[in-house]
Amino acid sequence: MKFNEKFSKATAGMGSSMIRELVATTKGIPGLISLAGGFPSPDSFNKEDIAECYKEVVLESGNDILQYGASEGDAQLKEELIKWEEYKNMSMDEMLITVGSTNAIYYYAKTFINPGDVILCEAPSFLGSLVSFEAEMAELISIEMDDEGINIEKLKQAIADCAQNGKKVKFLYTIPDFQNPTGISMSAQRRMDLVELMAEVNIPILEDNPYSELRYTGEMIPSIFKIAEEKNLRGLVTLVKSFSKILGPGLRVAYAVSSEEIIGKMCSWQQKVNVSPGCVTERMVARFMQKDLLVKQIGIVNDLYTPYWEAMLTALEDFMPKTVKWTKPEGGMFVWLTLPEGVDADELFVKAREQKVAFIPGSKFFPKGQEQHNCLRLNYSYAKPDAIREGVKRLASIM
Amino acid sequence: MKFNEKFSKATAGMGSSMIRELVATTKGIPGLISLAGGFPSPDSFNKEDIAECYKEVVLESGNDILQYGASEGDAQLKEELIKWEEYKNMSMDEMLITVGSTNAIYYYAKTFINPGDVILCEAPSFLGSLVSFEAEMAELISIEMDDEGINIEKLKQAIADCAQNGKKVKFLYTIPDFQNPTGISMSAQRRMDLVELMAEVNIPILEDNPYSELRYTGEMIPSIFKIAEEKNLRGLVTLVKSFSKILGPGLRVAYAVSSEEIIGKMCSWQQKVNVSPGCVTERMVARFMQKDLLVKQIGIVNDLYTPYWEAMLTALEDFMPKTVKWTKPEGGMFVWLTLPEGVDADELFVKAREQKVAFIPGSKFFPKGQEQHNCLRLNYSYAKPDAIREGVKRLASIM
Repeated sequence: MKFNEKFSKATAGMGSSMIRELVATTKGIPGLISLAGGFPSPDSFNKEDIAECYKEVVLESGNDILQYGASEGDAQLKEELIKWEEYKNMSMDEMLITVGSTNAIYYYAKTFINPGDVILCEAPSFLGSLVSFEAEMAELISIEMDDEGINIEKLKQAIADCAQNGKKVKFLYTIPDFQNPTGISMSAQRRMDLVELMAEVNIPILEDNPYSELRYTGEMIPSIFKIAEEKNLRGLVTLVKSFSKILGPGLRVAYAVSSEEIIGKMCSWQQKVNVSPGCVTERMVARFMQKDLLVKQIGIVNDLYTPYWEAMLTALEDFMPKTVKWTKPEGGMFVWLTLPEGVDADELFVKAREQKVAFIPGSKFFPKGQEQHNCLRLNYSYAKPDAIREGVKRLASIM
Repeated sequence: MKFNEKFSKATAGMGSSMIRELVATTKGIPGLISLAGGFPSPDSFNKEDIAECYKEVVLESGNDILQYGASEGDAQLKEELIKWEEYKNMSMDEMLITVGSTNAIYYYAKTFINPGDVILCEAPSFLGSLVSFEAEMAELISIEMDDEGINIEKLKQAIADCAQNGKKVKFLYTIPDFQNPTGISMSAQRRMDLVELMAEVNIPILEDNPYSELRYTGEMIPSIFKIAEEKNLRGLVTLVKSFSKILGPGLRVAYAVSSEEIIGKMCSWQQKVNVSPGCVTERMVARFMQKDLLVKQIGIVNDLYTPYWEAMLTALEDFMPKTVKWTKPEGGMFVWLTLPEGVDADELFVKAREQKVAFIPGSKFFPKGQEQHNCLRLNYSYAKPDAIREGVKRLASIM
């Protein structure tokens, strides 16, 4: 029996994942080099320690962690995270463990969005979050970026335009470190300017930060959350961090920190959506941290990816025509190429596939109707350094 | 900073969990016997085999299961489940693995509910699901039950009333086996009548089935899903089953089966809400099944609970005054007591707490405004048999 006529408006309006479908067209092509996805390298997975931690916690604490757990998340894991991040004056009620970052972002979206509300984001931004906001029937307005991150003047203008048009802006979504898809990191000054502006206009910030631990050169920049903390603006920024790029996305463990007010509401959604994250896996990660394995693991991951990242940036220098510009990330997984005006990366994708190299056309990272087409994203966390170099060479040959 | 004025309507309208708050008032009372919660006994947890399965799958398949996994769920687990349940003509696209039953129920709710839509449920029913439907702004209409399950005539009447009032009924939510909170199992005949009616009026059924494997006497009754299958009504029933009561709720693993159309939409929501369930835990459960441990485990769980269930039913016979009636479940975790008219179980709760015994007042299991008060739920899966007997005795003494 068919019931599509009974589906909710949000469900009826949902499309399939364009990126997934695009990547699917490259599957099974022998010798294809994929610079398309956003997968971490399996060589980064610490199978031995993770296997051992799982076994230990189930044997030792099975009575506790096989039972129903707190919707707020595992207390042991939260304790370790507060220590690790050196969060000051943070209570357990200001942190929520979730089933990956996307899950935290979804709860935040549910906490704020009524149909028709405006969410501000960077242009371009992470598609996975944008489709979540759209599924809650938000209107997305994307704001131009420069080398230092989101353009504050354009942001002010967008907020003013919304106010004039009677549109309700609920929050700003930003990925300040090694942004997906551009690789751009927001400068410290820009972060301070952003906090000042958003406090003034009373619009909260959702800071999505899955990549900041993947730094191959340069200095760490404090999170927007920490900058707001120094100004006693708890609640202005909700920070989401994930273990996906360090331990493995298959675990589905991330966390959010914010005010007790916002975390409490996100937790109410978790109760209704998942009851709690997987308690065994939460405790396994806590054990991994208790054994001081995390600092070592981050070192291993960064040592692994440094030659991947070098191979990417060197190959771009060596092979790309002068008319192509690209970002210069100091970490993360992605670099963003800007092609000459008029070149369409969606068309280039088809030609590149013939040359056995895949990327994601830039248009896929903008809200509908706000697309740019002369741009594309390359990944450097999955194909190995030699393949990255060869892939960039192939791509350059068709430019 | 406070942002509550920006919260979505659904968020602003959410209350805290009444049951949680009630249970919290009994915490820390020395010697208190709790027949309140719905927790499985930790004695049912198979820590050794679960620990071993976790270790094996991470060591052997870590490259696969620590990576991003399918939003549809782990293919190996789905294969095992299709074999285990003897589902005929079922493709992988007709099954979705989820982060526990609540998660599957949430996706189903998201697939169908627009604000103001009507969801039909049993009176009483499982509060966790009811609050999920309410959070999506559905109107709940609860239908009387008798010893054989939902009353078909009352159901027909409710559907007719909705049609007359221009209300859109999106689905019926039912727990046909050892229902929470009543312990009632819907008879085979009633299931057939229900399938016939719902096919005729074109309203789909959400069958929540976490308890059917916990049977201590009597014969298994085919699921509503299987009855509909025999009539080639795929899609009419979406069945949700869980590992929570067999392996442990802390794992957060459940699954849904339905038509490809409905499962596809639920999967689109999973992509936006969780990306995928925890891949390591999914594969751990697959391994547990591949090793033929599940049939043994269900035997262990049923052997464990049989004396708990016997203790409950015997104590009720031995101690309860004749004016109190109760259901006679053949399995599961709950029995439902009906007190004389005018007796308020919410008031009884306070007196019982003084006598150091806890239960859940029946009023908590009805949609708002449809409460009954002379009823209560007792659990027999957590307190041990001696404690169950003593708890019932204490409760009877204040009746």
